[in-house]
Amino acid sequence: MTNRRAFLTALGAVGVGANSSLRAAGRSPDALRIDVARLQRTLEELSVFGRPAGGSFADGVSRTAYSDADVAGRRYVVELMRHGGLDPKIDVAGNIRASRPGSRASLKPIVFGSHIDSVPNGGNFDGDVGSLSAIEVIQTLVDAGVKTRHPLEVCIWSNEEGGTVGSHSAAGDLDPGTMDRQFNGIAMRSGLVKIGGDPTRLAEARRAAQSMHCYLELHIEQGGTLQKASVPIGVVDGIVSIDQYDVEIRGFANHAGTTPMPERRNALLAAAKLIEAVQDEVTKMPGRQVGTVGQLTVFPNAPNVVPGLVKHTIEFRDLSEDVLVRLGEAAKQRAQDIAAETGTQITITRSEHLRPALATPQIQKQIEAAAAGLGLKTMHLPSGAGHDAQNIAQIAPMGMIFIPSVGGISHSPKELSTWEACANGANVLLQTILRVDAT
Amino acid sequence: MTNRRAFLTALGAVGVGANSSLRAAGRSPDALRIDVARLQRTLEELSVFGRPAGGSFADGVSRTAYSDADVAGRRYVVELMRHGGLDPKIDVAGNIRASRPGSRASLKPIVFGSHIDSVPNGGNFDGDVGSLSAIEVIQTLVDAGVKTRHPLEVCIWSNEEGGTVGSHSAAGDLDPGTMDRQFNGIAMRSGLVKIGGDPTRLAEARRAAQSMHCYLELHIEQGGTLQKASVPIGVVDGIVSIDQYDVEIRGFANHAGTTPMPERRNALLAAAKLIEAVQDEVTKMPGRQVGTVGQLTVFPNAPNVVPGLVKHTIEFRDLSEDVLVRLGEAAKQRAQDIAAETGTQITITRSEHLRPALATPQIQKQIEAAAAGLGLKTMHLPSGAGHDAQNIAQIAPMGMIFIPSVGGISHSPKELSTWEACANGANVLLQTILRVDAT
Repeated sequence: MTNRRAFLTALGAVGVGANSSLRAAGRSPDALRIDVARLQRTLEELSVFGRPAGGSFADGVSRTAYSDADVAGRRYVVELMRHGGLDPKIDVAGNIRASRPGSRASLKPIVFGSHIDSVPNGGNFDGDVGSLSAIEVIQTLVDAGVKTRHPLEVCIWSNEEGGTVGSHSAAGDLDPGTMDRQFNGIAMRSGLVKIGGDPTRLAEARRAAQSMHCYLELHIEQGGTLQKASVPIGVVDGIVSIDQYDVEIRGFANHAGTTPMPERRNALLAAAKLIEAVQDEVTKMPGRQVGTVGQLTVFPNAPNVVPGLVKHTIEFRDLSEDVLVRLGEAAKQRAQDIAAETGTQITITRSEHLRPALATPQIQKQIEAAAAGLGLKTMHLPSGAGHDAQNIAQIAPMGMIFIPSVGGISHSPKELSTWEACANGANVLLQTILRVDAT
Repeated sequence: MTNRRAFLTALGAVGVGANSSLRAAGRSPDALRIDVARLQRTLEELSVFGRPAGGSFADGVSRTAYSDADVAGRRYVVELMRHGGLDPKIDVAGNIRASRPGSRASLKPIVFGSHIDSVPNGGNFDGDVGSLSAIEVIQTLVDAGVKTRHPLEVCIWSNEEGGTVGSHSAAGDLDPGTMDRQFNGIAMRSGLVKIGGDPTRLAEARRAAQSMHCYLELHIEQGGTLQKASVPIGVVDGIVSIDQYDVEIRGFANHAGTTPMPERRNALLAAAKLIEAVQDEVTKMPGRQVGTVGQLTVFPNAPNVVPGLVKHTIEFRDLSEDVLVRLGEAAKQRAQDIAAETGTQITITRSEHLRPALATPQIQKQIEAAAAGLGLKTMHLPSGAGHDAQNIAQIAPMGMIFIPSVGGISHSPKELSTWEACANGANVLLQTILRVDAT
């Protein structure tokens, strides 16, 4: 299918909405609902860009930022916004932004959106649900002739998966070296130009602190907590803080046949003990903190050599930085004991620290109320994954809405949220916007 | 230094030995001793072939089989034998063999030797000590005019480090695919031609069962047991049996931020528990058995992904095949429990089984007696490493003599045995030969 044909199909789908006569009929905005079929259709339309050759929706998508598929997907989104009567602009950071004026010009905008770039071999829900729901929400309001007090702005952030580049730029805290890096075989700088940004003027993408009324983002959970609890809406407490450590365990490489067990200084045995210690420390305290040894390399890595060196990572995540400090200290203490026990030397160095981004309590309450008004149960949970919302939280009140991920699977073609779940999320987003508009 | 110059220096060194007048003086062969200085000198001479450019003896050697360094080292050995009055031949398997007739032509030969090929970045003792001591022993007998009853044969086996190719050929059990393989960038077949063998007639290298009176090999221990016990001579009980297993642990790769601890199916956590279980099973039973997880690979191996797949090896070694069976069963039982506990699937498949090669008890006794006659303490120990002797044990009575390795280090430029230790080993080899000659 050519891109042009995909556009036309999509444009045909964005017609007169189901709620267009709502206001004329005098119904309350509380009764406003998004068009489920239209949301599904646009998600399916967008999925074409980056789909594996000969595949279907279920085969997922590779729409990495700055790829041809990303450019095509972004053009699709721009056309969709235009067809809805909006006038989207691309800012110097490559963010696609479209505003709808409010009734009171002096009020700050309510900003909402997500991203449409994906990981390689990703799914059709991560980012897409929040992005197309944001457009669907504004389309629903346009169709119903409902005017908000605050201006509304849909924002599709650029390159989320490659380091939340667009939202970091908006928050004014993009790492200065970012544009000098390569990303999926493309120089970041060239990639940004390719999608309509301007790396030489990146500072202009910065948005002033407290210039937004608030920022809202709908996203799939990417974990299995909501599904397991049979709760359709997650109210995000915040996006977790991350501490990553590099661990180096030095033993002594020796012949596996000639070195008696008591004389070994086995770096992999020490690593095994430390992996178990990390699991133990993380799970023995109450709370939702997680700890992961995800990357590990053995040297010289031969069946008949006692490992002399192991390098691995430890990553801790929690909303509370205090918890992370306690976990880091506990790991170091356990490592010291393991080193003594195994005759190895263990060094643990913190390589990365990401601060948590707490969601604004008042907005969490509005999300709860919006869901309650729709008859949808909610539960509070942290976001273990990073999101554009964590950057925008530095400059604006922030709230995030989660919907269930089937099986907790994400960053995979198997990623799935039901159409009902997507519609629930979009309706909660819509009703939350109307509620915060009144504040 | 050119090869030619090295030869000349060495040849100059192999002159009239210290014991040449021993027989004339009427001293008993029990008093016969090798020439320590000559042994040291030939070891130093041989070390030149494969030495790192600009390095010294302490920088070790890379004399991998079939390399130019191997060819040069072999030529050095051949010249050394010739200078000693022997007439070395290269058999179709590339083994260098030199015989000295005995007084009784009907008796079977006493064969002794080792190898001179090394691992990449190896040391100057593994194989070299046994090879040059064998030549030194025969030179000592020649110099002293001591004639044995049995014919003597020094054998320098080809390509020990690449699969004991020469001794396997002599035992008639070389894996038929061996010559089709590559070894250090050289086709095995071409390599064998390069050192004077003939891969098309390899079957002719086979030596008839019981055609040797016995086979003796002096070797460095390559472990730290003798040094730790302050014992100069090890009497090898046998060369251990080896069972190697391939382990595959399947969990589920998932986002390290969004997957709560109780919902993880972490393949690396399961591997850590299995590594500890292997250590536990091996060390909790009495004996010298060893068990090693030396090779381990994590997939996808990213700091922020719960590992979905781990592949690793387990290797067990012991003289007793029964012990290995018990260890294999114990590991499988523990793996089953760990799989249930971690929500993973673990498959364990035996990929290799090497049978043990027991040293002949009567020869062990002769080695003990020879050492006692020299005032040297002995201890019995298994060989955890493989040796040419394990192949020859299939066709002849076999005995092995170990000398201490400083720090238990081998297959490294740091590999070291003192000159005194080398001389002790060579003298025990000499006296053992004289003792078995009387049987």
